[in-house]
Amino acid sequence: MKKKGKITDIEGKKMAKFSKIPEATIRRLSSYLKCMVDLEGKNEKVASSAVIASICNVNAAQVRKDFAYFGEFGIRGMGYNVKDLKRHIKEILGINREWRIAVVGVGNMGSALLVYKDFLKQNYKIVAAFDLYPEMVIGRISERVGKPVEILHVDRLKEVVSARNIEIGIITTPPQEAQKVADQLIEANIKGILNFSPAPVRTSENVKLRNLFFTSALDNLVYYLSN
Amino acid sequence: MKKKGKITDIEGKKMAKFSKIPEATIRRLSSYLKCMVDLEGKNEKVASSAVIASICNVNAAQVRKDFAYFGEFGIRGMGYNVKDLKRHIKEILGINREWRIAVVGVGNMGSALLVYKDFLKQNYKIVAAFDLYPEMVIGRISERVGKPVEILHVDRLKEVVSARNIEIGIITTPPQEAQKVADQLIEANIKGILNFSPAPVRTSENVKLRNLFFTSALDNLVYYLSN
Repeated sequence: MKKKGKITDIEGKKMAKFSKIPEATIRRLSSYLKCMVDLEGKNEKVASSAVIASICNVNAAQVRKDFAYFGEFGIRGMGYNVKDLKRHIKEILGINREWRIAVVGVGNMGSALLVYKDFLKQNYKIVAAFDLYPEMVIGRISERVGKPVEILHVDRLKEVVSARNIEIGIITTPPQEAQKVADQLIEANIKGILNFSPAPVRTSENVKLRNLFFTSALDNLVYYLSN
Repeated sequence: MKKKGKITDIEGKKMAKFSKIPEATIRRLSSYLKCMVDLEGKNEKVASSAVIASICNVNAAQVRKDFAYFGEFGIRGMGYNVKDLKRHIKEILGINREWRIAVVGVGNMGSALLVYKDFLKQNYKIVAAFDLYPEMVIGRISERVGKPVEILHVDRLKEVVSARNIEIGIITTPPQEAQKVADQLIEANIKGILNFSPAPVRTSENVKLRNLFFTSALDNLVYYLSN
Protein backbone atom coordinates (compact mmCIF):
# COMPACT_ATOMS: atom_id res chain seq x y z
CA MET A 1 0.00 0.00 0.00
CA LYS A 2 1.18 3.53 -0.74
CA LYS A 3 1.63 5.95 2.11
CA LYS A 4 -1.31 8.14 2.84
CA GLY A 5 -0.94 11.59 1.32
CA LYS A 6 2.18 10.80 -0.65
CA ILE A 7 3.03 9.08 -3.86
CA THR A 8 6.23 8.43 -5.74
CA ASP A 9 6.37 9.10 -9.45
CA ILE A 10 6.93 6.34 -11.96
CA GLU A 11 10.70 6.48 -11.59
CA GLY A 12 10.35 6.62 -7.83
CA LYS A 13 12.49 9.75 -7.66
CA LYS A 14 10.12 12.47 -6.67
CA MET A 15 7.38 12.90 -4.14
CA ALA A 16 4.34 15.13 -4.28
CA LYS A 17 1.91 15.77 -1.50
CA PHE A 18 -1.71 14.90 -2.09
CA SER A 19 -3.19 17.28 0.38
CA LYS A 20 -3.13 20.46 -1.69
CA ILE A 21 -4.43 19.03 -4.92
CA PRO A 22 -7.43 21.02 -6.14
CA GLU A 23 -10.73 19.21 -6.39
CA ALA A 24 -10.93 20.18 -10.05
CA THR A 25 -7.65 18.38 -10.74
CA ILE A 26 -8.94 15.22 -9.10
CA ARG A 27 -12.02 15.53 -11.26
CA ARG A 28 -10.00 15.94 -14.43
CA LEU A 29 -7.80 12.95 -13.55
CA SER A 30 -10.65 10.57 -14.18
CA SER A 31 -11.32 12.27 -17.48
CA TYR A 32 -7.65 11.78 -18.39
CA LEU A 33 -7.94 8.16 -17.33
CA LYS A 34 -10.87 7.66 -19.64
CA CYS A 35 -8.80 9.21 -22.39
CA MET A 36 -5.92 6.79 -21.67
CA VAL A 37 -8.25 3.79 -21.77
CA ASP A 38 -9.61 4.94 -25.13
CA LEU A 39 -6.14 5.59 -26.55
CA GLU A 40 -4.95 2.21 -25.32
CA GLY A 41 -7.93 0.63 -27.07
CA LYS A 42 -6.68 2.29 -30.27
CA ASN A 43 -3.19 0.90 -29.69
CA GLU A 44 -1.63 4.31 -29.09
CA LYS A 45 1.57 4.06 -27.06
CA VAL A 46 2.35 7.72 -26.38
CA ALA A 47 0.14 10.79 -26.05
CA SER A 48 1.17 14.45 -25.90
CA SER A 49 -0.49 16.84 -23.50
CA ALA A 50 -2.01 18.51 -26.58
CA VAL A 51 -3.70 15.28 -27.65
CA ILE A 52 -4.94 14.55 -24.15
CA ALA A 53 -6.17 18.14 -23.83
CA SER A 54 -8.08 17.95 -27.08
CA ILE A 55 -9.86 14.72 -26.16
CA CYS A 56 -10.63 15.89 -22.63
CA ASN A 57 -11.79 19.32 -23.62
CA VAL A 58 -9.23 21.28 -21.56
CA ASN A 59 -6.03 23.12 -22.55
CA ALA A 60 -2.62 21.48 -22.75
CA ALA A 61 -1.05 23.68 -20.06
CA GLN A 62 -3.77 22.52 -17.67
CA VAL A 63 -2.98 18.87 -18.43
CA ARG A 64 0.72 19.40 -17.68
CA LYS A 65 -0.08 21.37 -14.54
CA ASP A 66 -2.46 18.66 -13.28
CA PHE A 67 0.09 15.90 -13.77
CA ALA A 68 2.83 17.99 -12.17
CA TYR A 69 1.05 17.69 -8.81
CA PHE A 70 1.97 14.02 -8.77
CA GLY A 71 5.52 14.27 -10.00
CA GLU A 72 6.81 14.78 -13.53
CA PHE A 73 6.13 11.62 -15.36
CA GLY A 74 6.01 12.87 -18.94
CA ILE A 75 8.99 12.87 -21.28
CA ARG A 76 9.81 16.32 -22.66
CA GLY A 77 9.05 16.58 -26.36
CA MET A 78 7.55 13.11 -26.40
CA GLY A 79 4.49 13.17 -24.18
CA TYR A 80 3.21 10.55 -21.83
CA ASN A 81 3.41 6.79 -22.03
CA VAL A 82 -0.24 5.78 -22.28
CA LYS A 83 0.01 2.53 -20.33
CA ASP A 84 2.13 4.01 -17.52
CA LEU A 85 -0.03 7.07 -17.23
CA LYS A 86 -3.16 4.94 -17.02
CA ARG A 87 -1.67 2.82 -14.28
CA HIS A 88 -0.39 5.87 -12.47
CA ILE A 89 -3.75 7.70 -12.49
CA LYS A 90 -5.48 4.54 -11.28
CA GLU A 91 -3.04 4.40 -8.36
CA ILE A 92 -3.58 8.05 -7.53
CA LEU A 93 -7.36 7.69 -7.60
CA GLY A 94 -7.31 4.41 -5.71
CA ILE A 95 -9.00 2.35 -8.41
CA ASN A 96 -6.13 -0.07 -8.91
CA ARG A 97 -8.29 -2.59 -7.09
CA GLU A 98 -11.94 -3.72 -7.25
CA TRP A 99 -14.67 -1.70 -5.52
CA ARG A 100 -17.88 -3.54 -4.71
CA ILE A 101 -21.09 -1.59 -5.12
CA ALA A 102 -24.78 -1.86 -4.24
CA VAL A 103 -27.46 -0.06 -6.24
CA VAL A 104 -30.57 0.89 -4.27
CA GLY A 105 -33.66 1.67 -6.34
CA VAL A 106 -34.06 -0.13 -9.64
CA GLY A 107 -36.20 2.20 -11.74
CA ASN A 108 -35.04 3.60 -15.06
CA MET A 109 -31.92 5.11 -13.60
CA GLY A 110 -30.96 2.07 -11.51
CA SER A 111 -31.58 -0.23 -14.47
CA ALA A 112 -29.33 1.93 -16.62
CA LEU A 113 -26.54 1.60 -14.06
CA LEU A 114 -26.90 -2.17 -13.75
CA VAL A 115 -25.88 -2.50 -17.38
CA TYR A 116 -23.43 0.41 -17.51
CA LYS A 117 -20.46 -1.33 -19.07
CA ASP A 118 -17.90 1.31 -18.15
CA PHE A 119 -18.18 0.45 -14.46
CA LEU A 120 -16.79 -3.00 -15.03
CA LYS A 121 -14.03 -1.70 -17.27
CA GLN A 122 -12.76 0.34 -14.36
CA ASN A 123 -12.96 -2.10 -11.49
CA TYR A 124 -16.39 -1.00 -10.28
CA LYS A 125 -18.47 -4.09 -9.68
CA ILE A 126 -22.16 -3.91 -8.85
CA VAL A 127 -22.69 -7.01 -6.71
CA ALA A 128 -26.16 -6.27 -5.33
CA ALA A 129 -29.30 -4.34 -6.27
CA PHE A 130 -32.21 -3.50 -3.98
CA ASP A 131 -35.72 -2.26 -4.45
CA LEU A 132 -38.89 -1.92 -2.40
CA TYR A 133 -40.66 -4.14 -4.93
CA PRO A 134 -38.08 -6.58 -6.30
CA GLU A 135 -40.65 -8.82 -7.94
CA MET A 136 -41.97 -5.89 -10.00
CA VAL A 137 -38.48 -4.81 -10.98
CA ILE A 138 -37.62 -8.25 -12.24
CA GLY A 139 -40.66 -8.22 -14.48
CA ARG A 140 -39.78 -4.75 -15.70
CA ILE A 141 -36.14 -5.04 -16.60
CA SER A 142 -35.58 -8.69 -17.36
CA GLU A 143 -36.86 -8.54 -20.91
CA ARG A 144 -34.48 -5.71 -21.77
CA VAL A 145 -31.28 -6.14 -19.85
CA GLY A 146 -31.44 -9.73 -18.76
CA LYS A 147 -30.69 -10.23 -15.11
CA PRO A 148 -27.29 -8.69 -14.47
CA VAL A 149 -27.63 -9.13 -10.73
CA GLU A 150 -30.35 -10.49 -8.47
CA ILE A 151 -32.78 -7.80 -7.27
CA LEU A 152 -33.33 -8.08 -3.52
CA HIS A 153 -35.78 -6.48 -1.13
CA VAL A 154 -34.30 -3.41 0.52
CA ASP A 155 -34.92 -5.00 3.94
CA ARG A 156 -31.95 -7.25 3.24
CA LEU A 157 -29.58 -4.33 2.68
CA LYS A 158 -27.57 -4.49 5.90
CA GLU A 159 -27.12 -8.24 5.79
CA VAL A 160 -26.06 -8.31 2.13
CA VAL A 161 -23.74 -5.28 2.33
CA SER A 162 -21.86 -7.05 5.07
CA ALA A 163 -21.91 -10.52 3.49
CA ARG A 164 -20.72 -9.28 0.10
CA ASN A 165 -18.10 -6.78 1.37
CA ILE A 166 -19.82 -3.86 -0.30
CA GLU A 167 -18.10 -0.52 0.23
CA ILE A 168 -20.10 1.86 -1.95
CA GLY A 169 -23.85 2.42 -2.17
CA ILE A 170 -25.49 4.13 -5.13
CA ILE A 171 -28.87 5.74 -4.47
CA THR A 172 -31.22 5.74 -7.45
CA THR A 173 -34.53 5.94 -5.62
CA PRO A 174 -37.16 8.68 -5.98
CA PRO A 175 -36.08 11.80 -4.02
CA GLN A 176 -38.50 11.23 -1.15
CA GLU A 177 -36.84 7.87 -0.36
CA ALA A 178 -33.24 9.05 -0.67
CA GLN A 179 -32.51 10.09 2.92
CA LYS A 180 -34.03 6.93 4.32
CA VAL A 181 -31.88 4.81 2.05
CA ALA A 182 -28.79 6.88 2.93
CA ASP A 183 -29.51 6.19 6.62
CA GLN A 184 -29.87 2.48 5.91
CA LEU A 185 -26.58 2.44 4.02
CA ILE A 186 -24.82 4.23 6.86
CA GLU A 187 -26.36 1.76 9.32
CA ALA A 188 -24.96 -1.02 7.12
CA ASN A 189 -21.43 0.45 7.54
CA ILE A 190 -21.03 1.54 3.96
CA LYS A 191 -17.91 3.67 3.28
CA GLY A 192 -19.13 5.88 0.49
CA ILE A 193 -22.41 6.96 -1.11
CA LEU A 194 -23.03 8.18 -4.62
CA ASN A 195 -26.43 9.83 -4.72
CA PHE A 196 -28.17 10.01 -8.10
CA SER A 197 -31.50 11.08 -6.66
CA PRO A 198 -32.23 14.79 -7.01
CA ALA A 199 -32.63 15.19 -3.22
CA PRO A 200 -29.51 16.20 -1.26
CA VAL A 201 -28.87 13.61 1.46
CA ARG A 202 -26.88 13.92 4.66
CA THR A 203 -24.41 11.35 5.90
CA SER A 204 -22.41 10.85 9.05
CA GLU A 205 -18.87 12.24 9.25
CA ASN A 206 -17.16 8.97 8.40
CA VAL A 207 -19.19 8.24 5.26
CA LYS A 208 -18.06 10.04 2.10
CA LEU A 209 -20.82 11.40 -0.09
CA ARG A 210 -21.02 12.58 -3.67
CA ASN A 211 -24.24 13.92 -5.12
CA LEU A 212 -24.69 13.62 -8.84
CA PHE A 213 -27.39 16.11 -9.71
CA PHE A 214 -28.14 16.22 -13.41
CA THR A 215 -29.34 19.81 -13.12
CA SER A 216 -25.85 20.73 -11.93
CA ALA A 217 -24.35 19.43 -15.15
CA LEU A 218 -26.85 21.53 -17.10
CA ASP A 219 -26.23 24.57 -14.87
CA ASN A 220 -22.56 24.29 -15.61
CA LEU A 221 -23.10 24.01 -19.35
CA VAL A 222 -25.55 26.93 -19.34
CA TYR A 223 -23.15 29.12 -17.36
CA TYR A 224 -20.55 28.76 -20.08
CA LEU A 225 -23.18 29.26 -22.78
CA SER A 226 -24.32 32.49 -21.09
CA ASN A 227 -20.96 34.05 -20.25
CA MET B 1 -29.65 41.61 -20.11
CA LYS B 2 -26.61 41.80 -17.89
CA LYS B 3 -23.29 42.71 -19.41
CA LYS B 4 -21.12 39.85 -20.49
CA GLY B 5 -18.50 39.02 -17.90
CA LYS B 6 -19.78 41.38 -15.25
CA ILE B 7 -22.55 41.40 -12.73
CA THR B 8 -23.75 43.82 -10.11
CA ASP B 9 -24.50 42.53 -6.64
CA ILE B 10 -27.98 42.66 -5.18
CA GLU B 11 -27.51 46.24 -3.94
CA GLY B 12 -26.00 47.21 -7.26
CA LYS B 13 -22.98 48.72 -5.55
CA LYS B 14 -20.14 46.37 -6.40
CA MET B 15 -18.92 44.65 -9.50
CA ALA B 16 -17.05 41.40 -9.80
CA LYS B 17 -15.48 39.99 -12.90
CA PHE B 18 -16.62 36.60 -14.08
CA SER B 19 -13.49 35.69 -15.92
CA LYS B 20 -11.39 34.47 -13.02
CA ILE B 21 -13.98 32.42 -11.21
CA PRO B 22 -12.72 28.88 -10.67
CA GLU B 23 -14.57 26.08 -12.36
CA ALA B 24 -15.11 24.45 -8.96
CA THR B 25 -16.92 27.56 -7.71
CA ILE B 26 -19.25 27.51 -10.70
CA ARG B 27 -19.89 23.86 -9.96
CA ARG B 28 -20.69 24.54 -6.32
CA LEU B 29 -23.01 27.41 -7.24
CA SER B 30 -25.53 25.00 -8.64
CA SER B 31 -25.27 22.94 -5.49
CA TYR B 32 -25.97 26.10 -3.46
CA LEU B 33 -28.89 26.85 -5.74
CA LYS B 34 -30.36 23.43 -5.08
CA CYS B 35 -29.92 24.10 -1.38
CA MET B 36 -31.77 27.44 -1.69
CA VAL B 37 -34.64 25.81 -3.57
CA ASP B 38 -34.95 23.18 -0.83
CA LEU B 39 -34.79 25.77 1.96
CA GLU B 40 -37.37 27.91 0.20
CA GLY B 41 -39.62 24.84 0.01
CA LYS B 42 -39.30 24.58 3.78
CA ASN B 43 -40.22 28.25 4.16
CA GLU B 44 -36.79 29.28 5.43
CA LYS B 45 -36.12 32.98 4.84
CA VAL B 46 -32.47 33.25 5.86
CA ALA B 47 -29.56 30.79 5.77
CA SER B 48 -26.11 31.13 7.30
CA SER B 49 -23.03 30.00 5.45
CA ALA B 50 -22.74 27.22 8.06
CA VAL B 51 -26.21 25.89 7.20
CA ILE B 52 -25.55 26.08 3.46
CA ALA B 53 -22.18 24.41 3.97
CA SER B 54 -23.67 21.58 5.94
CA ILE B 55 -26.36 20.84 3.35
CA CYS B 56 -23.95 21.14 0.44
CA ASN B 57 -21.19 19.10 2.01
CA VAL B 58 -18.51 21.82 1.93
CA ASN B 59 -17.08 24.08 4.63
CA ALA B 60 -18.53 27.46 5.57
CA ALA B 61 -15.42 29.43 4.63
CA GLN B 62 -15.67 27.96 1.14
CA VAL B 63 -19.28 29.08 0.84
CA ARG B 64 -18.37 32.66 1.80
CA LYS B 65 -15.38 32.65 -0.52
CA ASP B 66 -17.47 31.39 -3.43
CA PHE B 67 -20.12 34.06 -2.98
CA ALA B 68 -17.47 36.77 -2.58
CA TYR B 69 -16.54 36.36 -6.24
CA PHE B 70 -19.86 37.89 -7.17
CA GLY B 71 -19.99 40.73 -4.65
CA GLU B 72 -20.85 40.60 -0.99
CA PHE B 73 -24.50 39.86 -0.75
CA GLY B 74 -24.71 38.27 2.67
CA ILE B 75 -25.53 40.19 5.83
CA ARG B 76 -22.83 39.87 8.50
CA GLY B 77 -24.04 37.84 11.48
CA MET B 78 -27.33 37.07 9.74
CA GLY B 79 -26.52 35.01 6.70
CA TYR B 80 -28.07 35.12 3.28
CA ASN B 81 -31.60 35.92 2.22
CA VAL B 82 -32.73 32.65 0.65
CA LYS B 83 -34.97 34.15 -2.03
CA ASP B 84 -32.46 36.79 -3.08
CA LEU B 85 -29.60 34.34 -3.12
CA LYS B 86 -31.59 31.91 -5.25
CA ARG B 87 -32.43 34.63 -7.74
CA HIS B 88 -28.87 35.87 -7.74
CA ILE B 89 -27.31 32.46 -8.40
CA LYS B 90 -29.80 31.85 -11.20
CA GLU B 91 -28.71 35.13 -12.79
CA ILE B 92 -25.05 34.26 -12.44
CA LEU B 93 -25.52 30.82 -13.98
CA GLY B 94 -27.80 32.12 -16.71
CA ILE B 95 -30.82 30.00 -15.77
CA ASN B 96 -33.12 32.90 -15.09
CA ARG B 97 -34.82 31.99 -18.35
CA GLU B 98 -36.05 28.78 -20.00
CA TRP B 99 -33.62 26.50 -21.82
CA ARG B 100 -35.09 24.15 -24.41
CA ILE B 101 -33.58 20.70 -24.63
CA ALA B 102 -33.61 17.65 -26.90
CA VAL B 103 -32.83 14.17 -25.62
CA VAL B 104 -31.29 11.81 -28.18
CA GLY B 105 -31.50 8.11 -27.34
CA VAL B 106 -34.46 6.92 -25.30
CA GLY B 107 -33.20 3.81 -23.53
CA ASN B 108 -33.17 3.47 -19.74
CA MET B 109 -31.11 6.59 -19.27
CA GLY B 110 -33.04 8.73 -21.72
CA SER B 111 -36.35 7.55 -20.24
CA ALA B 112 -35.11 8.50 -16.79
CA LEU B 113 -34.32 12.02 -17.99
CA LEU B 114 -37.69 12.47 -19.71
CA VAL B 115 -39.38 12.23 -16.32
CA TYR B 116 -36.65 13.91 -14.25
CA LYS B 117 -38.76 16.43 -12.38
CA ASP B 118 -35.88 18.61 -11.25
CA PHE B 119 -35.25 19.78 -14.81
CA LEU B 120 -38.61 21.48 -14.99
CA LYS B 121 -38.19 23.04 -11.56
CA GLN B 122 -35.13 24.83 -12.83
CA ASN B 123 -36.27 26.09 -16.22
CA TYR B 124 -34.91 23.15 -18.19
CA LYS B 125 -37.56 21.99 -20.59
CA ILE B 126 -37.21 18.84 -22.66
CA VAL B 127 -39.23 19.64 -25.77
CA ALA B 128 -38.15 16.79 -28.03
CA ALA B 129 -36.84 13.24 -27.78
CA PHE B 130 -35.29 11.20 -30.56
CA ASP B 131 -34.45 7.57 -31.11
CA LEU B 132 -33.46 5.30 -33.98
CA TYR B 133 -36.55 3.19 -33.28
CA PRO B 134 -39.23 5.54 -31.95
CA GLU B 135 -42.01 3.00 -32.29
CA MET B 136 -40.17 0.54 -30.04
CA VAL B 137 -39.45 3.23 -27.46
CA ILE B 138 -43.07 4.20 -27.26
CA GLY B 139 -44.02 0.63 -26.52
CA ARG B 140 -41.27 0.39 -23.94
CA ILE B 141 -41.75 3.46 -21.84
CA SER B 142 -45.41 4.37 -22.26
CA GLU B 143 -46.69 1.98 -19.61
CA ARG B 144 -44.33 3.38 -16.99
CA VAL B 145 -43.86 7.05 -17.58
CA GLY B 146 -46.74 7.90 -19.82
CA LYS B 147 -45.73 9.91 -22.83
CA PRO B 148 -43.99 13.03 -21.51
CA VAL B 149 -42.94 14.08 -24.98
CA GLU B 150 -43.40 12.60 -28.44
CA ILE B 151 -40.54 10.30 -29.47
CA LEU B 152 -39.37 11.14 -32.99
CA HIS B 153 -37.06 9.43 -35.43
CA VAL B 154 -33.53 10.81 -35.20
CA ASP B 155 -33.69 11.70 -38.92
CA ARG B 156 -35.92 14.60 -37.94
CA LEU B 157 -33.38 16.06 -35.53
CA LYS B 158 -32.19 19.05 -37.56
CA GLU B 159 -35.68 20.11 -38.59
CA VAL B 160 -37.12 19.83 -35.08
CA VAL B 161 -34.18 21.48 -33.28
CA SER B 162 -34.68 24.49 -35.52
CA ALA B 163 -38.49 24.53 -35.38
CA ARG B 164 -38.62 24.22 -31.59
CA ASN B 165 -35.75 26.62 -30.80
CA ILE B 166 -33.76 23.93 -29.03
CA GLU B 167 -30.41 25.11 -27.66
CA ILE B 168 -29.14 22.08 -25.76
CA GLY B 169 -28.83 18.45 -26.83
CA ILE B 170 -28.47 15.61 -24.35
CA ILE B 171 -26.85 12.43 -25.68
CA THR B 172 -28.09 9.22 -24.04
CA THR B 173 -27.31 6.77 -26.83
CA PRO B 174 -25.03 3.75 -26.60
CA PRO B 175 -21.36 4.85 -26.78
CA GLN B 176 -20.85 3.71 -30.36
CA GLU B 177 -23.58 6.12 -31.55
CA ALA B 178 -22.50 9.12 -29.47
CA GLN B 179 -20.12 10.85 -31.89
CA LYS B 180 -22.53 10.50 -34.79
CA VAL B 181 -25.30 12.08 -32.71
CA ALA B 182 -22.95 14.86 -31.57
CA ASP B 183 -22.17 15.60 -35.23
CA GLN B 184 -25.88 15.68 -36.05
CA LEU B 185 -26.53 18.06 -33.16
CA ILE B 186 -23.70 20.35 -34.31
CA GLU B 187 -25.09 20.22 -37.85
CA ALA B 188 -28.46 21.24 -36.38
CA ASN B 189 -26.81 24.36 -34.87
CA ILE B 190 -27.17 23.32 -31.27
CA LYS B 191 -25.37 25.58 -28.75
CA GLY B 192 -24.45 23.08 -26.07
CA ILE B 193 -24.19 19.32 -25.61
CA LEU B 194 -24.45 17.32 -22.43
CA ASN B 195 -23.09 13.85 -23.10
CA PHE B 196 -24.30 11.05 -20.81
CA SER B 197 -22.88 8.28 -22.97
CA PRO B 198 -19.61 6.82 -21.69
CA ALA B 199 -17.79 7.69 -24.92
CA PRO B 200 -16.00 11.05 -25.05
CA VAL B 201 -17.31 13.05 -28.02
CA ARG B 202 -15.72 15.95 -29.87
CA THR B 203 -17.50 19.11 -30.85
CA SER B 204 -16.68 22.13 -32.95
CA GLU B 205 -15.21 25.23 -31.28
CA ASN B 206 -18.49 27.09 -31.00
CA VAL B 207 -20.43 24.25 -29.35
CA LYS B 208 -19.96 23.88 -25.60
CA LEU B 209 -19.65 20.35 -24.33
CA ARG B 210 -19.95 18.72 -20.93
CA ASN B 211 -19.40 15.00 -20.48
CA LEU B 212 -21.15 13.36 -17.59
CA PHE B 213 -19.30 10.11 -17.03
CA PHE B 214 -20.67 8.12 -14.12
CA THR B 215 -17.30 6.47 -13.62
CA SER B 216 -15.87 9.92 -12.95
CA ALA B 217 -18.26 10.43 -10.06
CA LEU B 218 -17.17 7.07 -8.63
CA ASP B 219 -13.50 7.87 -9.26
CA ASN B 220 -13.91 11.04 -7.30
CA LEU B 221 -15.63 9.30 -4.41
CA VAL B 222 -13.03 6.53 -4.35
CA TYR B 223 -10.17 9.04 -4.37
CA TYR B 224 -11.47 10.55 -1.17
CA LEU B 225 -12.13 7.10 0.30
CA SER B 226 -8.56 6.06 -0.46
CA ASN B 227 -6.68 9.18 0.65
